[in-house]
Amino acid sequence: MLNFEYCNPVKIVFGKGTITELDKLVPADVSVLVLYGGGSIKKNGVYSQVIAALGKRRVLEFSGIEPNPFCETCMKAVEMIKQEKIGFLLAVGGGSVLDAAKFIAAAARYDGTDPWDILAKGAAVKSAVPLGAVLTLPATGSEMNANSVISKAASGEKLFFSSPCVYPQFSILDPETTFTLPARQTINGIVDAYVHVFEQYMTFDVNAPLQDRQAESVLLTLIEEGPKVIQKPLDYDARANVMWAATNALNGLLGCGVPQDWATHMIGHELTAFYGIDHAQSLAVVLPRLLTHCKEAKKAKLLQYGERIFGLKFTAGDECKAADAAIKATEEFFNSLGMHTRLSDYKIDANDAAVKISRRLKERGTMLGERADLSPEDVSEILISCV
Amino acid sequence: MLNFEYCNPVKIVFGKGTITELDKLVPADVSVLVLYGGGSIKKNGVYSQVIAALGKRRVLEFSGIEPNPFCETCMKAVEMIKQEKIGFLLAVGGGSVLDAAKFIAAAARYDGTDPWDILAKGAAVKSAVPLGAVLTLPATGSEMNANSVISKAASGEKLFFSSPCVYPQFSILDPETTFTLPARQTINGIVDAYVHVFEQYMTFDVNAPLQDRQAESVLLTLIEEGPKVIQKPLDYDARANVMWAATNALNGLLGCGVPQDWATHMIGHELTAFYGIDHAQSLAVVLPRLLTHCKEAKKAKLLQYGERIFGLKFTAGDECKAADAAIKATEEFFNSLGMHTRLSDYKIDANDAAVKISRRLKERGTMLGERADLSPEDVSEILISCV
Repeated sequence: MLNFEYCNPVKIVFGKGTITELDKLVPADVSVLVLYGGGSIKKNGVYSQVIAALGKRRVLEFSGIEPNPFCETCMKAVEMIKQEKIGFLLAVGGGSVLDAAKFIAAAARYDGTDPWDILAKGAAVKSAVPLGAVLTLPATGSEMNANSVISKAASGEKLFFSSPCVYPQFSILDPETTFTLPARQTINGIVDAYVHVFEQYMTFDVNAPLQDRQAESVLLTLIEEGPKVIQKPLDYDARANVMWAATNALNGLLGCGVPQDWATHMIGHELTAFYGIDHAQSLAVVLPRLLTHCKEAKKAKLLQYGERIFGLKFTAGDECKAADAAIKATEEFFNSLGMHTRLSDYKIDANDAAVKISRRLKERGTMLGERADLSPEDVSEILISCV
Repeated sequence: MLNFEYCNPVKIVFGKGTITELDKLVPADVSVLVLYGGGSIKKNGVYSQVIAALGKRRVLEFSGIEPNPFCETCMKAVEMIKQEKIGFLLAVGGGSVLDAAKFIAAAARYDGTDPWDILAKGAAVKSAVPLGAVLTLPATGSEMNANSVISKAASGEKLFFSSPCVYPQFSILDPETTFTLPARQTINGIVDAYVHVFEQYMTFDVNAPLQDRQAESVLLTLIEEGPKVIQKPLDYDARANVMWAATNALNGLLGCGVPQDWATHMIGHELTAFYGIDHAQSLAVVLPRLLTHCKEAKKAKLLQYGERIFGLKFTAGDECKAADAAIKATEEFFNSLGMHTRLSDYKIDANDAAVKISRRLKERGTMLGERADLSPEDVSEILISCV
């Protein structure tokens, strides 16, 4: 096992009817800015529950946060925070709203000239407006981590930052808020969470059996419960199990003491930045081909994964075929959920993607993978095979 | 799944050579009281590492904290804190030292007349002296929770309390500090952690498959890595895996959204209070008989446990035998570590224990188990069968 530090101070309030807890969790003596997206929370009743729970507080709103939120949108909220002397941010939505809230919280207190430098140049986040969340879409794990991914319309970039200053003080997870999610978002969430586990699990082995099994616990839960929520959107237990699995997929615990990869995410972010496909779609396309490309380096873990998750037995001499079978089973799981896994399914030209993305990674001098040995040329090969 | 709240702010610093991090973690401008037990930390080099890392801080010491620490001992440390204006407590040791530090921290700031009321009457803990820990014995999970178990010599009681005020600010876990543990303590630690998982897992089913699998992850790690640390005390990875497993056994995550039992612990505490056997020994004696007594209520989980942990298959009509086999396999695992599992092994009269302990539970009006349906008469039957 590798040395590590772990600390996650987010308070999770989980279950039916828990939005009323906002009254205890949100400070009463400051102005609150409620952040949300396109208005689905008004249709499904979440908005009115939130407003009712906030009671007599001074509440302002900032809506219109888009999927893969833009820095440009976030900066409008920052203006509002400064003008209205906002003391607390309440993000109500999925990962995009939460990620935006984190960037807004940090940008509002940023002491440099351009807050985009937090993402583009790794400028330090020294403080942030306190924030909390009501999660309505299990997927990114943003409700229980300090990460945020933000895009910039002007430059077509999609970058991430992480800072302990932007941990939500609390996150309310009421599975009933997910009953009315469109199937596409439900499916995206399952795939996103699955790949989060992969980035922390499917690496070279460092003899950390507990972390391996904790990761496998999340994968098996997503495989078993994922199809249920697609078939029966009102199945409370299945919704609850998927929701808690997605949170556990990226709250830091699985990454304790093990190497981490994140190449699939880095390549996927570029696909979204250049072609606008959903984040989870980009992951579902890249992961199988990346695994095939890195099969030798990841073989031991691929065999363990195939055996423990899909019951794929193998004998000596058979390892290469068994690793392929594990990769195939992964892609088939995504497909079974209704997720397409080829660039052509999204009308993206694989060669075009390979040229553009490998060029950008080269310009940035980025090497990917848990050993930082995946070059822009490797990424080009991977993307060509995603055709 | 049941509704739940979860928050665990403890910072874990894990790995080889991490005691030097104390210099960053302990405040520099207050007097520090180092709490420890019988002096093993002086023999194995941990003490000198701690003192070196604390550098030029004003450091005082309080040693002699016994296993199953006494309130009476703790109160001497409280006196010292008040006289010497101590601003930070550093617990260096295992669960007993950590539990004592938590009670001392709360007692030093207690505003009532008798701090024992925190345990005996559930008196509120409103504040505590800040504390941190260097863990040298993986077992209780105290390094990453807010629980503490304290005994009182005068009354022969052993009680617990829990308060968010006594979370350690940090816990340093260096597996090398466990290389020189006596075999008895290593074995006790494995069994203690195993039973912690059981109290949160072996209950009626509430459809929480992720929590089940997370619990099984810890059990399997203890079963696989436990024997290794006994056979090869200097195996770093095995020590690290057992250490991290013990922390994960009781940091609150496994108990999220599921019923909890704790009857084995409650009965075990009384065995220790009356007869002085080690905490883990008491658990190893009680657990198999408690499971047999509650076999019907816990049958579904016992069958799942037997199958997933020990590969015990069963067919319809065979469930009762399969549940018995799962209980037997658990006891055999304890025995295989060198742990005795019968009261007679510890020269305790089962009838005497049954009379004394059921009488005490009756006086307190205590009902045990995840449904609070285990009466003092049930406990008496269980203890008689522990002969």
